Amino acid sequence: MNKQRGTIRIGIAGANGYTGGELLKLLARHPYAEVTYVTSRSDAGKKVAEVFPALTGYGSLEFKEFSVSAAAELCDVMFLCLPHTAGAAIAEGLINSGIKVIDLSANFRYKDVNLYEKTYNVTHPAPELNKTAVYGLPELNRAEIKNAALAANPGCYTTCSILSLYPLLAEKLIKPAGIIINAASGVSGAGRRAEAEYAFCEVSDNFKAYSVTTHRHTSEIEAVLSQKAAASVTVNFTPHLSPVKRGILCTIYAPVTDKFKSESDAEAAYLKYYKGEKFVHYTGTALPELKHVTETNNCKIGCKYDPKNGLLIIVSALDNLIKGASGQAVQNMNVMFGMPEKTGL
Amino acid sequence: MNKQRGTIRIGIAGANGYTGGELLKLLARHPYAEVTYVTSRSDAGKKVAEVFPALTGYGSLEFKEFSVSAAAELCDVMFLCLPHTAGAAIAEGLINSGIKVIDLSANFRYKDVNLYEKTYNVTHPAPELNKTAVYGLPELNRAEIKNAALAANPGCYTTCSILSLYPLLAEKLIKPAGIIINAASGVSGAGRRAEAEYAFCEVSDNFKAYSVTTHRHTSEIEAVLSQKAAASVTVNFTPHLSPVKRGILCTIYAPVTDKFKSESDAEAAYLKYYKGEKFVHYTGTALPELKHVTETNNCKIGCKYDPKNGLLIIVSALDNLIKGASGQAVQNMNVMFGMPEKTGL
Amino acid sequence: MNKQRGTIRIGIAGANGYTGGELLKLLARHPYAEVTYVTSRSDAGKKVAEVFPALTGYGSLEFKEFSVSAAAELCDVMFLCLPHTAGAAIAEGLINSGIKVIDLSANFRYKDVNLYEKTYNVTHPAPELNKTAVYGLPELNRAEIKNAALAANPGCYTTCSILSLYPLLAEKLIKPAGIIINAASGVSGAGRRAEAEYAFCEVSDNFKAYSVTTHRHTSEIEAVLSQKAAASVTVNFTPHLSPVKRGILCTIYAPVTDKFKSESDAEAAYLKYYKGEKFVHYTGTALPELKHVTETNNCKIGCKYDPKNGLLIIVSALDNLIKGASGQAVQNMNVMFGMPEKTGL
Amino acid sequence: MNKQRGTIRIGIAGANGYTGGELLKLLARHPYAEVTYVTSRSDAGKKVAEVFPALTGYGSLEFKEFSVSAAAELCDVMFLCLPHTAGAAIAEGLINSGIKVIDLSANFRYKDVNLYEKTYNVTHPAPELNKTAVYGLPELNRAEIKNAALAANPGCYTTCSILSLYPLLAEKLIKPAGIIINAASGVSGAGRRAEAEYAFCEVSDNFKAYSVTTHRHTSEIEAVLSQKAAASVTVNFTPHLSPVKRGILCTIYAPVTDKFKSESDAEAAYLKYYKGEKFVHYTGTALPELKHVTETNNCKIGCKYDPKNGLLIIVSALDNLIKGASGQAVQNMNVMFGMPEKTGL
Repeated sequence: MNKQRGTIRIGIAGANGYTGGELLKLLARHPYAEVTYVTSRSDAGKKVAEVFPALTGYGSLEFKEFSVSAAAELCDVMFLCLPHTAGAAIAEGLINSGIKVIDLSANFRYKDVNLYEKTYNVTHPAPELNKTAVYGLPELNRAEIKNAALAANPGCYTTCSILSLYPLLAEKLIKPAGIIINAASGVSGAGRRAEAEYAFCEVSDNFKAYSVTTHRHTSEIEAVLSQKAAASVTVNFTPHLSPVKRGILCTIYAPVTDKFKSESDAEAAYLKYYKGEKFVHYTGTALPELKHVTETNNCKIGCKYDPKNGLLIIVSALDNLIKGASGQAVQNMNVMFGMPEKTGL
Repeated sequence: MNKQRGTIRIGIAGANGYTGGELLKLLARHPYAEVTYVTSRSDAGKKVAEVFPALTGYGSLEFKEFSVSAAAELCDVMFLCLPHTAGAAIAEGLINSGIKVIDLSANFRYKDVNLYEKTYNVTHPAPELNKTAVYGLPELNRAEIKNAALAANPGCYTTCSILSLYPLLAEKLIKPAGIIINAASGVSGAGRRAEAEYAFCEVSDNFKAYSVTTHRHTSEIEAVLSQKAAASVTVNFTPHLSPVKRGILCTIYAPVTDKFKSESDAEAAYLKYYKGEKFVHYTGTALPELKHVTETNNCKIGCKYDPKNGLLIIVSALDNLIKGASGQAVQNMNVMFGMPEKTGL
Repeated sequence: MNKQRGTIRIGIAGANGYTGGELLKLLARHPYAEVTYVTSRSDAGKKVAEVFPALTGYGSLEFKEFSVSAAAELCDVMFLCLPHTAGAAIAEGLINSGIKVIDLSANFRYKDVNLYEKTYNVTHPAPELNKTAVYGLPELNRAEIKNAALAANPGCYTTCSILSLYPLLAEKLIKPAGIIINAASGVSGAGRRAEAEYAFCEVSDNFKAYSVTTHRHTSEIEAVLSQKAAASVTVNFTPHLSPVKRGILCTIYAPVTDKFKSESDAEAAYLKYYKGEKFVHYTGTALPELKHVTETNNCKIGCKYDPKNGLLIIVSALDNLIKGASGQAVQNMNVMFGMPEKTGL
Repeated sequence: MNKQRGTIRIGIAGANGYTGGELLKLLARHPYAEVTYVTSRSDAGKKVAEVFPALTGYGSLEFKEFSVSAAAELCDVMFLCLPHTAGAAIAEGLINSGIKVIDLSANFRYKDVNLYEKTYNVTHPAPELNKTAVYGLPELNRAEIKNAALAANPGCYTTCSILSLYPLLAEKLIKPAGIIINAASGVSGAGRRAEAEYAFCEVSDNFKAYSVTTHRHTSEIEAVLSQKAAASVTVNFTPHLSPVKRGILCTIYAPVTDKFKSESDAEAAYLKYYKGEKFVHYTGTALPELKHVTETNNCKIGCKYDPKNGLLIIVSALDNLIKGASGQAVQNMNVMFGMPEKTGL
């Protein structure tokens, strides 16, 4: 890799999972990024290409055990691909060393620490730091992300749901209650784990709903939308596991308000909020499919009106590992370092 | 195959598609059925094993061009696996020759010929015959099927939806309006066709919604449920294409009535209507997955209550080629010929 | 299940894996078999339908911890679906209690205990019992199986390879050295395990060779063929993992002898040895595909001659869970109990 | 897309198939390439994003009917993604207009026109032009490609096979006769076609050999290797269809010569010929898997020795749409225009 001038030095903690691997894949193409530090407890001592044989561009870069001092010496920014709570514990040290942090876990996604603690059934390890965190959805929070030291990368389902609903709620075209988000995710959403539930023979030829009425992303969706749309938004969120490796498709059923007359109103709302956005595309009534977004950082959104039932049916899609995780994290980095958002994406 | 005494002689028209192949597979195991006549325009002259190499039990049985006189000589019952309208045209001749007919197309599924004509945008070719047809859903219509000469085998999505909703509507636990049926189907539901849309490279790794607000099964679901539940039922039905060969999973969002207190009410309703049923199983809050029903004639139904949104979420699954088509057709045959319903299934 | 007269009472040890589940599925359809005893250490106390929700016909049958005395009381025959060595240890007690045993592991597949020990790198736990074991490939060993108390069910790759090569070797149409068996297997061949290697995201969209030059089935293939064909047979066996749940396809490259003139010679050999066989089908130069055999107990074999290279290319296929494991085990049971071999298959 | 200075203007004929789409995807990332002209008979008038919704970077670029004069005005180089013979007919006009041509079909892959005509059963439409064509495998022909006006992009199976065998043959480590190439390809190798054979329900859960003893790439492999290795090379080439979208894995069985002592000899040969190559990687005895190369322009090669049978087993993999087609075409373009080979790849 011949990186160009002005290179950002990048660390990735927990880099041996799927989101870490995707970051490595994306950053290899980024002209101003150089990955200098990758950590993993279980794979410490291995080279990147041993853990990810498809990644041939990292030469002798080796996984290390994490230490703040090494990070401080080697990195300008660090991506945390760690389980929640594990990441929070080390974020503080990094920030104090002047390293910008982009956390891909749920640690810092909630303004309301109590809601986080209730949702994840843990005690927040860094509630003071949480106050400084910015929710890393550039299409909604670009200005704050620009100046943030700590960005909380949103969940995958969450990104897809919020981008789909925010303009319609903001324009009061749909009601804030009674929204149903029916989503189907690829299997990489569950992470790189040796669990019988995600074995090929269990997932292939199958399709199932899971975490019905209990999925944690529900409260994240409601909290962010309520804050942004200045209304008390409640949703039913029902995820499914689909036999594909990557990608999320949301089919959202939203009861329309009297203000809504036709799909043109939705179109106007989406164009108002997303005009000029590089990664959010409104597709009209030609609804997006999963394959239209996989291997890209795009979120595509289309919708169709069902007048008989007074429902707007919004279909949106993104790649859970890219716009739903690592691509969005790179987008956040680009914003934080003043680069064009599309750089490397 | 050494079939037993009292064998029923069976014909299958259009036997070279997926539902025809599934019938041949199922009937090979049926102890009282002998397939004596299989027809196909495009494959006439070929042996069964040439068209379906996996079916090794049919010896020298050959596909023929259809004729009523041959059917009359060779068959006691005929399954029609033909496009709608094509089947209606020949059903009349068969019935007049004393052959029982089980039609797997939409021809005779509607009491209201106008609704059929509007939904399918055709003129019904046999409206008089339609009056004598019985909707072939044994769990709802067993008694009429027993004496029918003509059974209209229900659609795959339809069977899954109706079995899920009927007891709850009949017991007034859910409201008849505002029901959302979000369904995902395997690709065999589209039939055995050479279309770019269903090519492996287009379907694999993909997931998409289709026919949003316009799918024909919507009116079939509404018509049957309205009639059976004595209420004007309206639904939003949104199907998806999932990268699996077979199976349908419905995730249904139904607004509950005041009568509904908890999932126990749903359980009582399902047990009331399906107790003793061989092929419909209530699974409680352990929701069914696609693989729990594929390669079987079972429909499994579970549900979970979302009190925050006042919704009962019903998840149900069946194999679109078996309980959603050919298995249900054999079940209807068993009823029509006075055999135990599980025979061969 | 209404089983018929003369029912055989069946036990399955280690019944909670894929071969155990397949046995349960097959035996549910067997008119003279009743499963009375299923054991599992990890799932003891659970009902069959809890572990295999697709199997709805086993009512209240529960997994138990294994004991010889319970087996002696409850079973006429016991299938062992246990890791090798684990099964050998308990086979002796069962045999001594007068229970017939069909072992699906490698325990008793080798006449030569030393070769077994070398191949599997263990000490054989029951070398005396091994002398009484019969290799359970009915097409080659029907007479001995009939009178055996202990049948060693062959490996999946092994069955496919031996059935493909035996007639050609016996008729000296191919040379006993220089044979290459290139095989591709579905993932269920690896068993029901929570290993990262078999996770959906690792297997899907992938294809790989594994155990190249070291796979254990090599010695089993060579030993059985050498004994049966009265020649010293050596093979290169190279397996691959294919992203399908079930099925094995072998593409075999065999150097022909001078006696071989054309594919008709191969046809004559296959017909000579397999005429009348219910489960082995010669398909000529129309080569079998995986889907022609999955969900059946059939092994299909075809071949094409490459005169330029003096090679006969034999393509054969079977379902690794059925003819390669549980179906063949039921076939062995049928032979041992004097029933028609196709019963229930 | 903000392309940089010194941009090459690019045309793609037949750009609406899979190789055309992959070119568009790759070239969108190429800093010195601008696609200015895309042609298609069936999709003329449509925008790129209508035909490939995943490609969002092409703005208003529209498919046109092909004409030489438009090409001459708009392009510096043209990629031909057309059926063989169709491309040959138009290549001449393009070359005469001073446009460099990279033909992805078989048109110009054979030095020996007779062999091409025999293999493809056609009359070569431009035998004079064929004399000027260069076989576009940069790792073997870099110098000639640099100065060529017409590059014949190799076949996908061919690239994988030749890169695997050439160093070993050149170093006389393996014999030129008796080589067996057993290959498995993803379905995109068959192109974007509406054929029942490639329907999802036919390919999914299946695996099959095809074109056994008759595949056209056999003669291309033999001709190129014979010429380059100065020996009469003959191979058995047996392709299989695997249920994946993209990628080829070759498992090659090569009889070793007396010169071969161990895998170190193979390693030395590969390093001798491929040292410094960006896209060909020797992996030692850790054999490559399909997923190690998909979505990349890499060809990975590993091998293991089977001393018992005197065979070297070489496993190699590439992405049929990238290194096996469009990526290699871009690599050829880079060579022809004096850019670093990795540019955009």
